[in-house]
Amino acid sequence: MNVSALLTSAGINIGICALLLFLCSLLRKQPGNVSVYFGRRLAQEHSRMLDSGPLDRLVPSASWLVKAWETSEEDLLGVAGLDAVVFIRMLVFSIRVFSIAAVVCLFGVLPANYYGQDMHHRKISSLSLDVFTIGNVDPGSRWLWVHCLSLYIISCSACVLLYFEYRSIARMRLIHITRSPPSPSHFTVLVRAIPWSVEEPYDDAVKNFFSKYHASTYLSHQMIYRVGKVQKLMNGAEEVYKKICLQATAIELTCRPSKYTCGLCGGKLESVRYHNDFELTAKKLDLNHSDLSTKLKECASAFVFFKSRYAALVASQVLQSSNPMLWVTDLAPEPHDIYWSNLWIPYRQLWFRRIATLLASIVFMFLFLIPVTFVQGLTQLDQLQQRLPFLKGILKKKFMIQIVTGYLPSVILLLFLYTVPPLMMLFSTLEGSISHSGRKKSACYKVLYFNIWNVFFVNVLSGSIIKQLNVISTPKGIPTELAKAVPSQATFFITYVLTSGWASLSSEVVQLFSLIWNFIRRHILRRKDDPDSAPSFPYHTEVPRVLVFGLLGFTCAILAPLIIPFLLVYFVLGYVVYRNQVLNVYIPKYETGGQMWPMMHNTTIFSLVLSQIINLGVFGIKRSPVASGFTIPLVICTLLFNEYCRKRFHPVFQNLSAQELIDMDEQDEKCEGRMEEIHKQLHMAYCQFSPPETTDESCRDVGPIGIDIDGESENRVDPKELETELEHPTLPGLPISSLQQSVKSLTRLVTVDSRKPSM
Amino acid sequence: MNVSALLTSAGINIGICALLLFLCSLLRKQPGNVSVYFGRRLAQEHSRMLDSGPLDRLVPSASWLVKAWETSEEDLLGVAGLDAVVFIRMLVFSIRVFSIAAVVCLFGVLPANYYGQDMHHRKISSLSLDVFTIGNVDPGSRWLWVHCLSLYIISCSACVLLYFEYRSIARMRLIHITRSPPSPSHFTVLVRAIPWSVEEPYDDAVKNFFSKYHASTYLSHQMIYRVGKVQKLMNGAEEVYKKICLQATAIELTCRPSKYTCGLCGGKLESVRYHNDFELTAKKLDLNHSDLSTKLKECASAFVFFKSRYAALVASQVLQSSNPMLWVTDLAPEPHDIYWSNLWIPYRQLWFRRIATLLASIVFMFLFLIPVTFVQGLTQLDQLQQRLPFLKGILKKKFMIQIVTGYLPSVILLLFLYTVPPLMMLFSTLEGSISHSGRKKSACYKVLYFNIWNVFFVNVLSGSIIKQLNVISTPKGIPTELAKAVPSQATFFITYVLTSGWASLSSEVVQLFSLIWNFIRRHILRRKDDPDSAPSFPYHTEVPRVLVFGLLGFTCAILAPLIIPFLLVYFVLGYVVYRNQVLNVYIPKYETGGQMWPMMHNTTIFSLVLSQIINLGVFGIKRSPVASGFTIPLVICTLLFNEYCRKRFHPVFQNLSAQELIDMDEQDEKCEGRMEEIHKQLHMAYCQFSPPETTDESCRDVGPIGIDIDGESENRVDPKELETELEHPTLPGLPISSLQQSVKSLTRLVTVDSRKPSM
Repeated sequence: MNVSALLTSAGINIGICALLLFLCSLLRKQPGNVSVYFGRRLAQEHSRMLDSGPLDRLVPSASWLVKAWETSEEDLLGVAGLDAVVFIRMLVFSIRVFSIAAVVCLFGVLPANYYGQDMHHRKISSLSLDVFTIGNVDPGSRWLWVHCLSLYIISCSACVLLYFEYRSIARMRLIHITRSPPSPSHFTVLVRAIPWSVEEPYDDAVKNFFSKYHASTYLSHQMIYRVGKVQKLMNGAEEVYKKICLQATAIELTCRPSKYTCGLCGGKLESVRYHNDFELTAKKLDLNHSDLSTKLKECASAFVFFKSRYAALVASQVLQSSNPMLWVTDLAPEPHDIYWSNLWIPYRQLWFRRIATLLASIVFMFLFLIPVTFVQGLTQLDQLQQRLPFLKGILKKKFMIQIVTGYLPSVILLLFLYTVPPLMMLFSTLEGSISHSGRKKSACYKVLYFNIWNVFFVNVLSGSIIKQLNVISTPKGIPTELAKAVPSQATFFITYVLTSGWASLSSEVVQLFSLIWNFIRRHILRRKDDPDSAPSFPYHTEVPRVLVFGLLGFTCAILAPLIIPFLLVYFVLGYVVYRNQVLNVYIPKYETGGQMWPMMHNTTIFSLVLSQIINLGVFGIKRSPVASGFTIPLVICTLLFNEYCRKRFHPVFQNLSAQELIDMDEQDEKCEGRMEEIHKQLHMAYCQFSPPETTDESCRDVGPIGIDIDGESENRVDPKELETELEHPTLPGLPISSLQQSVKSLTRLVTVDSRKPSM
Repeated sequence: MNVSALLTSAGINIGICALLLFLCSLLRKQPGNVSVYFGRRLAQEHSRMLDSGPLDRLVPSASWLVKAWETSEEDLLGVAGLDAVVFIRMLVFSIRVFSIAAVVCLFGVLPANYYGQDMHHRKISSLSLDVFTIGNVDPGSRWLWVHCLSLYIISCSACVLLYFEYRSIARMRLIHITRSPPSPSHFTVLVRAIPWSVEEPYDDAVKNFFSKYHASTYLSHQMIYRVGKVQKLMNGAEEVYKKICLQATAIELTCRPSKYTCGLCGGKLESVRYHNDFELTAKKLDLNHSDLSTKLKECASAFVFFKSRYAALVASQVLQSSNPMLWVTDLAPEPHDIYWSNLWIPYRQLWFRRIATLLASIVFMFLFLIPVTFVQGLTQLDQLQQRLPFLKGILKKKFMIQIVTGYLPSVILLLFLYTVPPLMMLFSTLEGSISHSGRKKSACYKVLYFNIWNVFFVNVLSGSIIKQLNVISTPKGIPTELAKAVPSQATFFITYVLTSGWASLSSEVVQLFSLIWNFIRRHILRRKDDPDSAPSFPYHTEVPRVLVFGLLGFTCAILAPLIIPFLLVYFVLGYVVYRNQVLNVYIPKYETGGQMWPMMHNTTIFSLVLSQIINLGVFGIKRSPVASGFTIPLVICTLLFNEYCRKRFHPVFQNLSAQELIDMDEQDEKCEGRMEEIHKQLHMAYCQFSPPETTDESCRDVGPIGIDIDGESENRVDPKELETELEHPTLPGLPISSLQQSVKSLTRLVTVDSRKPSM
């Protein structure tokens, strides 16, 4: 690949980006797309968007980019929560460190590479990109100290920046915990693996255990019930019933009733269904929920509420029983973060599920090698032509070759990569995460490992030494092999940044899928905007993406410095785009308090060490023992730095500290009645079948293994909206007793359906 | 090496063993050696040994072996503690599993190997041992299923036995914790990294922090003082003073006064020293210790006492401060287990020390390759003869060759290996362990890794592919390489079992070093028996030894089954010998409550998996895809089994459970006054300068890094003996005020010596 091919690729991408941004500027002004581009504002601020004039709608403007750029971090924190801020800080860190790298590499390494060999430099556009890589430097050249020095500067500045980021984020996390209003999750412990005995139901066992061993701090508890298929049926019935209520009382007709009236064939079919279902429906909302729940199947899990935060922390951290597989305690997730469908999973299954998921992920990683190998074939055209002779005709044109080698591989890889996050999310669900955030974090790790493996290693290794994958199994040779492979693959990575990076950002900002879905919903399904359907931020796709680009940047910075400007453009664009998305599009549905940062930190350290090892190999190949010798202490120091950070900051992200919690408890106790108020709210907050939490939840999933792939639609119901619904729940003339009867028969079905616990 | 060489080697070893056991039977009957062979009984039971008649002394008997065999486990537990029982259980496990292996291998694998090739079998004594290894089986042979089946039987029986052992030891540990008398360590937390401020000394900081955040449970605390060189001087002076007291009051003249009177030149020199030192000595015993300690340099560490066990557990497990590098809490070790010399180490230094020690250990491991390579040279005589031509003359005799190839390598390796445990103990001390048991456990791990690396891997790899150590860096090729190497090294391992194993057991039982030292002490130094000089059990040498033999057994069982009978003899002999040693020789000075078991379990699992992987490689080489295929699930199942055990049992060995501790607290609270009594004792138990704990302690070590290599001599003072000493501490006519003066001047010196904390 030469400079002109690179420019072709860059040109195409700049064109696409500009087009998409232009489109976005127009589309976001159309009132019909408000729910796509201003989902968060619509849901949280309930503000009608400014209705711009019809002419104004057709004039694109860049003011939204400026606005996204200018918003202060405090505003961002208030609007989108700490997690979003941490993500943006990752981008800021990347911009900073790659700005330094850009200065160092463009003014130091690039000239050293370019004049590395005593050669006649042709016209620049026809130059091969290899001229700009370290491959152009003669072995034993004196100029390798430039590379070594640059490596030192980049590594040190990265470590210093990382340290300050970690420190400030740890501080922000502490402030977030201490300043935020009292959270029920701080008072609640999730107990799993409650021992089963014939004489004592789970409910009594929990009560007895905690009133005996935590007598002074135990408040109450809330059992968790297994939601089976029958429960699902009942919930469906309930929903239909509610719909009838709403239709009949003709309150808020605009909101939901037209949900199933098809725009093409009208609503008749649905109306018939309503009446058939009617016999089955039950006025569950007015039933005594505890009466229902005792008849449901209790799980060996419960939420236990404590009188103070510190007591809950203690109960969650101490080994409760001499059998570590019983009475397993953890701090509960926040109420709206709970993934109810996984709470029933017996504790003993969890480790098995984790292992099974791990194996499945590894198998998937290797299966994915097939498309990657195909993609790599495209960059080596002559081989491809030999195998598929009919391509020879097509590939005669120079432009076609440039497109095929420079653009097509990345696009294909990109398309395949789109299938990965949903699958990893599925794996994380099967794994048994009990919270949405935990599930997303776990998926995030999986996607990250997957991307690093498939985008970086497989490309590097299969690209250079095709089909000699056993090179992976020689750790000692890896630095050398990587040193040979990375520079030759650098051009691929540059195009990857162009296609995958830039294109993903512009497609992110346009929200193509949402746009299409919005169009279908509005014009074919004829449903109105649901302000609560706005999604939460897809950390599990975006965090790994940014981190992998960081990895590419660190590893290629010294070897092929041309990648840095493209990366910097990506990060700056990403900074603006993600700020805009966070401010306008995504709703922060749950908050981990910046728990993503340790992952980002560790990945960056990994990238740094990997780049140092690769450079070590390169210096070895280039016969520069001095440069190699100087690199080894750098590797050790980086690892020591990481170890220090792990000791110094990481525990803050894992546990809450006694000091903070006790101070918070004391403050609450000083304010008269506040503690009692919190205690009162606890039970409601974690009630599985209380209307605000369950109505939408219970419509979903809830099969035997609780698969729920995207899962974002859980908890989508705005409590306020539901409250207004619940103010008018009953249809005056309905025969309530008959409804209660049918509910009872259903609950009988449930108890028949229930089996012994699989302990 | 052929059968007759093996028999030569076995013969020599049996002879040596028999001789040593015979010697031992005689020596232990001599009254002069009572302190060598009955150290524990002398110290703990204060029983005079039965004085046998002079004729009886010259007749060896095997009754002691029978007695050691017959002692019940309850007696052993009562006498030697849980740690010793756990160690014996490891031997029992080994005997059981290798008995099964012996049956399987000798009746299944051995015939399959022997008749593996269609060959004429010569006279058995001249047969090469290779005939009995798997090397004799033709590739693609149908009989490989015998090996695969045997592997299954051995692995499964090992797992089943391991499970039951782990379960019963976990149960024993729980009983040990709950049934033992109240331990001060359960009420005490060691706090490190107390933040330093100018206004607030450490003492006040601890008090303020814990009375604020643990108000309801905090009892009191005890600062830790840095013991410098001056302190050491003072303690020396104190000891001399005590000696004068004892001499003057002429009480218990038999005990210590003759300590320094040389048997050759008389005691005059020492007497002069006494009088010179007299000006310096101080009647410290009568001084107010707290007065002294406030003038000593406080460390950023303290023992904090709590009102209940549960409170201490909670305080030790919860993250105290939002800065995880401050207020670091751990449950304190038992008072007599504390390694005072390391308590002053600033917490921030610890991780650095750990890393430095790790690096030092790794460097040492590689330096050790030099003697190992030399040893390996001996087994390949022709190479050695080429390099050292003068050996040709010596090595012409067949008997010499047999000795050199069959016996010498192991002996040399053994001698080199004797230097390892003290060095690893030194590393563990430098690492900063705060308890004797922790130090020993850490050294145990180091010696274990070292032995596995140097005895097994280096021998296997350097022996077969001499000087191609880069084979270690190809993980994928390792099964194949090991599969090639292990069978060819099997004969070396057999001789290693004979020499290192059997000989170490017999030297263990004879206690050669103690015997010589005892002789020197009695006849040259003219000192009487000190009943408290008996050592504690050297777990850090014996546990790794037994585990490495287990590793050799598992890995060679299928490949070279001839090793099994020799190993079985080793384990049975070891069972008797160690029981005898534990019953008679070693004093249990501290108790970890069986915390060695997880290490033994993990090492056994490692050995199993390693043997499975080696067999996988062998089956691959022998072209038996079925056998290879069947081995893979076995590896996975073994790993899953280990994972289950880790979940199920390991937490019990790491933490105490709330349930047990609260029950114990309740029981103590029911008995009136018992809790108050315990509280009263706490402060005394952890007092750094209280006479019973320090007198001997403070004589030792205590340089800036606190090196104390063997460390067993700490705490050797029998409190009872000291108590009798302390009942008569003052010499009636001594000018006490002048002594106090000199102590004060010394304490002034101490405060000048003190520096700012290195925080």
